[in-house]
Amino acid sequence: MSSASRKTFLPLEPTSFTNESKAVIDFIADYYKNIEEYPVQSGVEPGYLSAKLPDSAPYCPESLEDILKDVNDCIIPGLTHWQSPNFFAYFQANASTAGFLGEMLCSGFNVVGFNWISSPAATELESIVLDWMGKLLKLPSSFLFSGTGGGVLHGSTCEAAVCTLAAARDKALKELGGWENITKLMVYASDQTHFTFQKAAKLVGIPPSNFRFIETSLSTGFSMSSDQVRLAIEHDIKSGLVPLFLCATIGTTACGAIDPIAELGQVAREYKLWLHIDAAYAGSACICPELRHFLDGVELANSVSMNPHKWFLTNMDCCCLWITEPRLLVDSLSTDPEILRNKASEFKAVLDYKDWQVALSRRFRALKLWIVIRRHGLANLVYHIRSDISMAERFEAFVAKDDRFDIVVPRKFALVCFRLKPKQELEGLELNSRLLEAINSSGRAFMTHAVVGGIYVIRCAIGTTMTEERHVDALWKLIQEKAQGLLME
Amino acid sequence: MSSASRKTFLPLEPTSFTNESKAVIDFIADYYKNIEEYPVQSGVEPGYLSAKLPDSAPYCPESLEDILKDVNDCIIPGLTHWQSPNFFAYFQANASTAGFLGEMLCSGFNVVGFNWISSPAATELESIVLDWMGKLLKLPSSFLFSGTGGGVLHGSTCEAAVCTLAAARDKALKELGGWENITKLMVYASDQTHFTFQKAAKLVGIPPSNFRFIETSLSTGFSMSSDQVRLAIEHDIKSGLVPLFLCATIGTTACGAIDPIAELGQVAREYKLWLHIDAAYAGSACICPELRHFLDGVELANSVSMNPHKWFLTNMDCCCLWITEPRLLVDSLSTDPEILRNKASEFKAVLDYKDWQVALSRRFRALKLWIVIRRHGLANLVYHIRSDISMAERFEAFVAKDDRFDIVVPRKFALVCFRLKPKQELEGLELNSRLLEAINSSGRAFMTHAVVGGIYVIRCAIGTTMTEERHVDALWKLIQEKAQGLLME
Repeated sequence: MSSASRKTFLPLEPTSFTNESKAVIDFIADYYKNIEEYPVQSGVEPGYLSAKLPDSAPYCPESLEDILKDVNDCIIPGLTHWQSPNFFAYFQANASTAGFLGEMLCSGFNVVGFNWISSPAATELESIVLDWMGKLLKLPSSFLFSGTGGGVLHGSTCEAAVCTLAAARDKALKELGGWENITKLMVYASDQTHFTFQKAAKLVGIPPSNFRFIETSLSTGFSMSSDQVRLAIEHDIKSGLVPLFLCATIGTTACGAIDPIAELGQVAREYKLWLHIDAAYAGSACICPELRHFLDGVELANSVSMNPHKWFLTNMDCCCLWITEPRLLVDSLSTDPEILRNKASEFKAVLDYKDWQVALSRRFRALKLWIVIRRHGLANLVYHIRSDISMAERFEAFVAKDDRFDIVVPRKFALVCFRLKPKQELEGLELNSRLLEAINSSGRAFMTHAVVGGIYVIRCAIGTTMTEERHVDALWKLIQEKAQGLLME
Repeated sequence: MSSASRKTFLPLEPTSFTNESKAVIDFIADYYKNIEEYPVQSGVEPGYLSAKLPDSAPYCPESLEDILKDVNDCIIPGLTHWQSPNFFAYFQANASTAGFLGEMLCSGFNVVGFNWISSPAATELESIVLDWMGKLLKLPSSFLFSGTGGGVLHGSTCEAAVCTLAAARDKALKELGGWENITKLMVYASDQTHFTFQKAAKLVGIPPSNFRFIETSLSTGFSMSSDQVRLAIEHDIKSGLVPLFLCATIGTTACGAIDPIAELGQVAREYKLWLHIDAAYAGSACICPELRHFLDGVELANSVSMNPHKWFLTNMDCCCLWITEPRLLVDSLSTDPEILRNKASEFKAVLDYKDWQVALSRRFRALKLWIVIRRHGLANLVYHIRSDISMAERFEAFVAKDDRFDIVVPRKFALVCFRLKPKQELEGLELNSRLLEAINSSGRAFMTHAVVGGIYVIRCAIGTTMTEERHVDALWKLIQEKAQGLLME
């Protein structure tokens, strides 16, 4: 069937590994050099790719040249360029050279550190770097290994949500004395909380109707009211339900809203709820002393998560989760099959991260976060955050100075939510969605929208690794140009 | 606080990206060149790393040279070298140049393809490559996009298990008319099924006591008996329970056992259970025509998963999941927040992979599997599998020829389960665990153990990318040497 042999088939031979890898490095460097030439959002039509690629795998090996040609001709046109300095959509996903190097080492070593013994360095570096990161955020020692807690790297906030919800669920079911009580467990979040928590609660078997959305409003900056949380809890307790879990957010997705951690923490303590803090986006900013106060009250939480893969120069994927009682995660998620038994784990001298996450297998992501922190240092990481916030202030000032526009929600961090003022409120959605489409379809920038308090807003999320002031200035010029066109109609 | 400025702080500047990345490529290539010099299993003591690294992050940036020196001096000694040709433990995690290139492109583009619009190429290439892979395995068209099904890349089998279990659960709860029925749902697997399914069932809220283990035995090669599954189902139905999900395995972790898919499929159809096939390890082997028959009956399953990151030259992480009714996944996992609304998704012209998995965010893993397939071609991929199986046959023959040893379970695929014959049965564990420790502590090879049918066996899993016949021969020599030492005592 095949003429391959060990002599000709060496899929990890160091010399060809080096040559081919360096060719791809050059390819990626060229991509970065030319990135501003591509339309930021891809304009391809659904199904475009199946017309360009064969419908089944090749029998014979193909050359790297042919493959890279196809990446260039077929894949790049179908990318929305998250690393473009003109990408202002969703939240950014910061790539950096340091993050990339970490990914390379992770992929190169390709160890699977499910337990300590399967690669001690993977477990130990992860614990160390979680403590580093926790200290950068000035988390109390109850979240650190050097204190009484600990942390783990997950792939996403949803995984952190699934694991913490499962831990809280299993603790409650044990106390309540039976699995049938799962239908009584209640989860609280605001109508601004990331939908991933709703998905996670359903995933762990909590009935969707047991997910309470606390309403927020423009008047309080879409922040969750602890009084309303208390009312909802009291109501549910009277109905025989069991309040379980409260999710507070620092920097919501739609508009960057900030929940009052200390106040919510008091309520959670009083009613014995598990308080999780989702700082996926804005957690990174809390390394700046002037922004750390948003985490005040964090000592009242049971768990905190944030995503270095958003704003912390760490290539996808990387989510930090800290927890005050790791034992509860392990109680819920641990498995102890014979096949993985080993002395180190049995003597409890080590921790096995397989019991802190959904999957068994895991990548050595800690290398990446470790290199990102060391290669930049706190000094440059703070500079990175401040520089993005300063560009957002600049953009906000442009908008504020132009009477045709509104800043709908006061800027938080580096996210500006604005709109073109409609003549009549009902026209706001139509006008601004047309404006957004005009901007995005130009290919010169890409933003996304949200609806907050019934108002359609355009979100300008500043913070890709390569964005400079000139890109923000060009974006504002583009917005004005497209707005002018619309208003002239 | 910082003297950094835009001029000096350019974390993704193409020239330094190129230079630093190439330095890391050279570092990794040197690692591969020297990999046989390291003890395969790390011999560090718990806590070794905290003594070597500072307990908090640096304020100033550090040089790449300093970081790589630490990787060399502190991290590598704490690695268990999964890419060593002398690694015969667990199941292998194949790295390859092609897989590494795919990871680099994925990390370099760093797009987040949660829905189609956020990077159409990421979604479309994933659908195409899942069809390619499905065709390599000769899956029926009911699992392919070109037919009536479809596939997705997950990070792990556990994620595939969580998602399929949630889909099956939600379908059943809808039919049963209330979430409280969750405590009636029953999951069936054998005592050889990977423990990840037990973990996943608990994660999705199915009571742990509702997980039925069907007993297997040496006499039937640890294969699950469809008659016993039927008996268990009948028993549970009589008790008012609701049979939900059956997991069959092709190539179990302990000893490579194979469940009879066609027979189990008949039972699943009869009782309307969701049948999932876990081919995490041995699925890759089914690309060989002479091994494809293990998948016979797959048309009766609802979902199939296998891990290219084990035996298919695809660096971590990569798990293929195919499903005949993707709609059921989407019904269970979809979220439709305003912030992600877009015309392409609304008009249902596209699929949004966020609704096929746990997390919202996702890496562009399809690039990696696509490049692995193209760069090697089916011809070399088949050669790769056959070459490993042939080396396993060679090893099996060595063991069989030596009267001091037993092949405990007939070899399946490239996994050989053997032991040193004890004089008395009770001494088998002691003798063989000492033998295993003597082998592993030599640093010259690394294997792990299992207990099947009460018998402690040493597992020799052949299949790392760089393993050649000479490594297998050296392993056998090492085993004989250590056995001789033990038997002389």
